[in-house]
Amino acid sequence: MTTLDKLIKNFSRLPGIGKKSAGRIAYYLLKADPAISRRLAEQLSTLHSSIIKCSVCGNYTEQDPCEICSNPNRDSSLICVVEEPQDIHTIEETREFNGLYHVLGGSISPMDGVGADDLSIAQLMRRVTNNPVQEVILATNPTVEGDTTALYLQRLLKEKGISVSRLASGLPVGGDLEYADRMTLARSFKGRTVM
Amino acid sequence: MTTLDKLIKNFSRLPGIGKKSAGRIAYYLLKADPAISRRLAEQLSTLHSSIIKCSVCGNYTEQDPCEICSNPNRDSSLICVVEEPQDIHTIEETREFNGLYHVLGGSISPMDGVGADDLSIAQLMRRVTNNPVQEVILATNPTVEGDTTALYLQRLLKEKGISVSRLASGLPVGGDLEYADRMTLARSFKGRTVM
Repeated sequence: MTTLDKLIKNFSRLPGIGKKSAGRIAYYLLKADPAISRRLAEQLSTLHSSIIKCSVCGNYTEQDPCEICSNPNRDSSLICVVEEPQDIHTIEETREFNGLYHVLGGSISPMDGVGADDLSIAQLMRRVTNNPVQEVILATNPTVEGDTTALYLQRLLKEKGISVSRLASGLPVGGDLEYADRMTLARSFKGRTVM
Repeated sequence: MTTLDKLIKNFSRLPGIGKKSAGRIAYYLLKADPAISRRLAEQLSTLHSSIIKCSVCGNYTEQDPCEICSNPNRDSSLICVVEEPQDIHTIEETREFNGLYHVLGGSISPMDGVGADDLSIAQLMRRVTNNPVQEVILATNPTVEGDTTALYLQRLLKEKGISVSRLASGLPVGGDLEYADRMTLARSFKGRTVM
């Protein structure tokens, strides 16, 4: 197997890249300036050594605590709980939230053998106990697993007297009723807001 | 900008990868075994040094002449002319062709400022002059540029008394007449075969 074939094979293993796209990328890189491949190679080789997990929230970071946890302008009385670090990235892009985050590292999923103990729930409870946290926003995915996890956390957090909220679920903005699935439409009824 | 942001940015510049997919890939690599990133990094960093262009046909190769040109079992009286090296890869996968290839490096496209002199046409003419080539199959893309290039080559090659053919253009196998575009359908009429 040639270097080119190996590269195509390894590219095609990345999420969202099929065999055809992998080939296109490899040939693109071959035709392009070698500096582009070199730069990518460099960033890939230092990826795991330069990026660590924040000891406070679990976000990927180059400094510990991460930029968000160590930012004095963020509201530390507000914690948004997410499943994965990339969810922080997505939420940050909305510029809607100015509190801190907590990464669970997944969601409770008995089917996949993931229980509550496999997630950083103990760390979250320690955080809310040791810090003056007023509200926890549960931003786990609106899936069976995400909902289960949210329900589980809500019970634990309510015991501590912390107000708990969940991201609204309903019709996507710009969407069309006709194309909404049954579950989403049902949720948008349950979560309807007074005008 | 962090290493992660830089990696996402550079991934999103690759063909077929948008900002979202780039993010997914980067986070996937962070969560996955560091060996995966390391292997990719290694292959990318040696890509341009280990892969050269075959001096005979222009294909990407690790040895010169390439595996196809130096294979004694291939029919050297048959040359298939393609636009790009990846086209060889695609044709090889069909296992339909056992001759040699010639990579033009593009197609004649006045709009993009690519003329006949920018393609390896002189090398092709030298090849057919110095070797006992009987047939040249023009496998440039069925686009305006590819057709123009094929027409141009056909005139040059006919002067040398070489038989020239062009890949059939028509309805894709498994396709539906209803979804065929007008041009393809028109071509499939022109190129109809006797049953």
